[in-house]
Amino acid sequence: MKNVAIIGAGLTKFGSHWDRDLVSLSVEAGIKAVHDAGISKEDVDALYGGTMSAGLFINQEHLASKLADFSGFRNIPSTRVEAACASGGVAFRQGYLDIASGMNDVVVVGGVEKMTDVGLHSITKALATAASHTYEANLGATFPGLYAMIAKRHMHDYGTKETDLAEVSVKNHENAIHNKYAQFRRKINVDDVLNSQMIADPLKLLDCSPITDGASAVVLASADVAKKVCDTPIWIKGSGHAVDTISLHDRKDITTLNATKEAARQAYLQSKMTSNDIDCVEVHDCFTIAEILAIEDLGFAKKGEGGKFVSEGQANIGGKLAVNTSGGLKAKGHPIGATGVAQAIEATLQLRGDAKNRNTNAEVAMAHNVGGSGGTSTVHIFSRDR
Amino acid sequence: MKNVAIIGAGLTKFGSHWDRDLVSLSVEAGIKAVHDAGISKEDVDALYGGTMSAGLFINQEHLASKLADFSGFRNIPSTRVEAACASGGVAFRQGYLDIASGMNDVVVVGGVEKMTDVGLHSITKALATAASHTYEANLGATFPGLYAMIAKRHMHDYGTKETDLAEVSVKNHENAIHNKYAQFRRKINVDDVLNSQMIADPLKLLDCSPITDGASAVVLASADVAKKVCDTPIWIKGSGHAVDTISLHDRKDITTLNATKEAARQAYLQSKMTSNDIDCVEVHDCFTIAEILAIEDLGFAKKGEGGKFVSEGQANIGGKLAVNTSGGLKAKGHPIGATGVAQAIEATLQLRGDAKNRNTNAEVAMAHNVGGSGGTSTVHIFSRDR
Repeated sequence: MKNVAIIGAGLTKFGSHWDRDLVSLSVEAGIKAVHDAGISKEDVDALYGGTMSAGLFINQEHLASKLADFSGFRNIPSTRVEAACASGGVAFRQGYLDIASGMNDVVVVGGVEKMTDVGLHSITKALATAASHTYEANLGATFPGLYAMIAKRHMHDYGTKETDLAEVSVKNHENAIHNKYAQFRRKINVDDVLNSQMIADPLKLLDCSPITDGASAVVLASADVAKKVCDTPIWIKGSGHAVDTISLHDRKDITTLNATKEAARQAYLQSKMTSNDIDCVEVHDCFTIAEILAIEDLGFAKKGEGGKFVSEGQANIGGKLAVNTSGGLKAKGHPIGATGVAQAIEATLQLRGDAKNRNTNAEVAMAHNVGGSGGTSTVHIFSRDR
Repeated sequence: MKNVAIIGAGLTKFGSHWDRDLVSLSVEAGIKAVHDAGISKEDVDALYGGTMSAGLFINQEHLASKLADFSGFRNIPSTRVEAACASGGVAFRQGYLDIASGMNDVVVVGGVEKMTDVGLHSITKALATAASHTYEANLGATFPGLYAMIAKRHMHDYGTKETDLAEVSVKNHENAIHNKYAQFRRKINVDDVLNSQMIADPLKLLDCSPITDGASAVVLASADVAKKVCDTPIWIKGSGHAVDTISLHDRKDITTLNATKEAARQAYLQSKMTSNDIDCVEVHDCFTIAEILAIEDLGFAKKGEGGKFVSEGQANIGGKLAVNTSGGLKAKGHPIGATGVAQAIEATLQLRGDAKNRNTNAEVAMAHNVGGSGGTSTVHIFSRDR
């Protein structure tokens, strides 16, 4: 396989963009990424995009054509990938495989979702299509409910406390203060989380990632191109991708996401690294419990000790392993399809030393994206060294 | 890039399956393909699937997880691709790139759509999401209407007749009689087409592909595996993929699909072949006019002469170039996501000499898939010779 690097990155502000449409957000992120890479439009060989449910959100499928069109591209391949909340991570991997195959040299991978002004009923209904319609969504299960069951079981089996969950949210809000693209940039404390509205016991409002509009894009390049045009290419050292049962009820243990464990195994194997080599990681904290699972399933803490890992400050910037320096899905925001690509962007900024007040001096970074309640997971490992 | 071959193929009957769901159809096609390849489930490294709008049709996104799950797969990558009616063709290409990159050796690529029992209003609304919502669907344009405009212009510019359109339908119905998986297996004549209900002038009911349930799957393998397990691997010699404007009004000439021309250029270049090397082709005849455009845009006839090419019998089995030996979208049926993969299957059967009464003794075959009104196109060239 050919070596592939990230040579450009672009983000929109994450939040409520009631005056912008999905196309406008996508084009902004794409243009920023191409400018950041210092290339021109003519250098781009192919496009990839992750979006979950533009069909349900905005009555528009066939986004690979529409977004290429409105970005001024004709006559190149453009591919839309969907994997629920892991749409961005899977799109990123497809862009990587495209260049690794030798088919193309420069690929832009974007992610986008437009969610805030489509009606709350539609949002919940659309998001529920990431669960099994037959056995979960159709019977009334929503994602806060599914993750609440995971949290309850984790608390039962391992003694994880509601304050442990709250500490995830407090940390990620703290980190987001230093990220100008984040949706929520205000300090909160544990009591704020515990006293926020109950959504699905034990998850309160401040345990849940928000509804967000936003777009993200990276430029990927082959080694030949990367060395020519970029002083600080960020190399993709490992790529893992795995699926598990779409439904919780089919899993022996709902406190472990097997898709995450398998995707991590693949990425560690390919990169010849272990969890000890990772300096910072963006994990998929769609709910606070999900960050705790990720810390365990990626190998950073023993099963059951993820909550303690966060509560003790080991996941802070300056701690043993900086987790969600961007603010994570919780505080940076979670425009579904954009999230996986935005995680790769945070890894890029950290490895370039461009993360400003949230810099970690990392040499190796990881991005971890999850679809549904763990039906899909991707894990990517990045390094400054080829 | 590594060489990649088709080593197995499986189809469901195309038609109305009111007693079956999307999962059941997908699993049937996948199992048939794996059995046909003579491999076992454990040999499969990754899955790819094309489906257009399961979110709108059946309230289910995240099909990469769901279909892997219900096929008994865990812990492997599974990727869903969407490109409107070209979803299958783009999924096929992604499976090809995966093996070509060296990441995996054996990949199953499936396509599926479940359309017949979701309510006619919903079908038309869902299909219209393949056009620009802003400038086409939201203003009332539907696909018969868009292709009717193309047909009118082609008739105006080149003198193409309604009988030329009808001859496409007559030929494809004739071919489908010999395909046990086809939706419509009855002979029709030109008068039947001309006298069928007007849908969007000049397109009558029998100029339009139908609403169909169905699934298709192929097993792709690296050269190492293909040579070991398969006596008649069918090699992928060229892969082309391009986008164009999603809307008709942005094109200088609506009688040419530039995405098809560009995808064909890429596939011819990679395969070092020209249109003269192709013995049979499956083209995207979503409407009869679309087959005429394809014959021209793929280089088999001069612009404006595609209708004559068909009317003169040159596209018949036994003619200069056998077009849509399977019956095409018109008569075999058009379960959106399944179509692109089913086209590769017909190419496989023709090259293996397994197409029974519709055999063409082809040595080189092509598959051509279109999304929307030409916003996306894929072209693949296949050969018995590596």
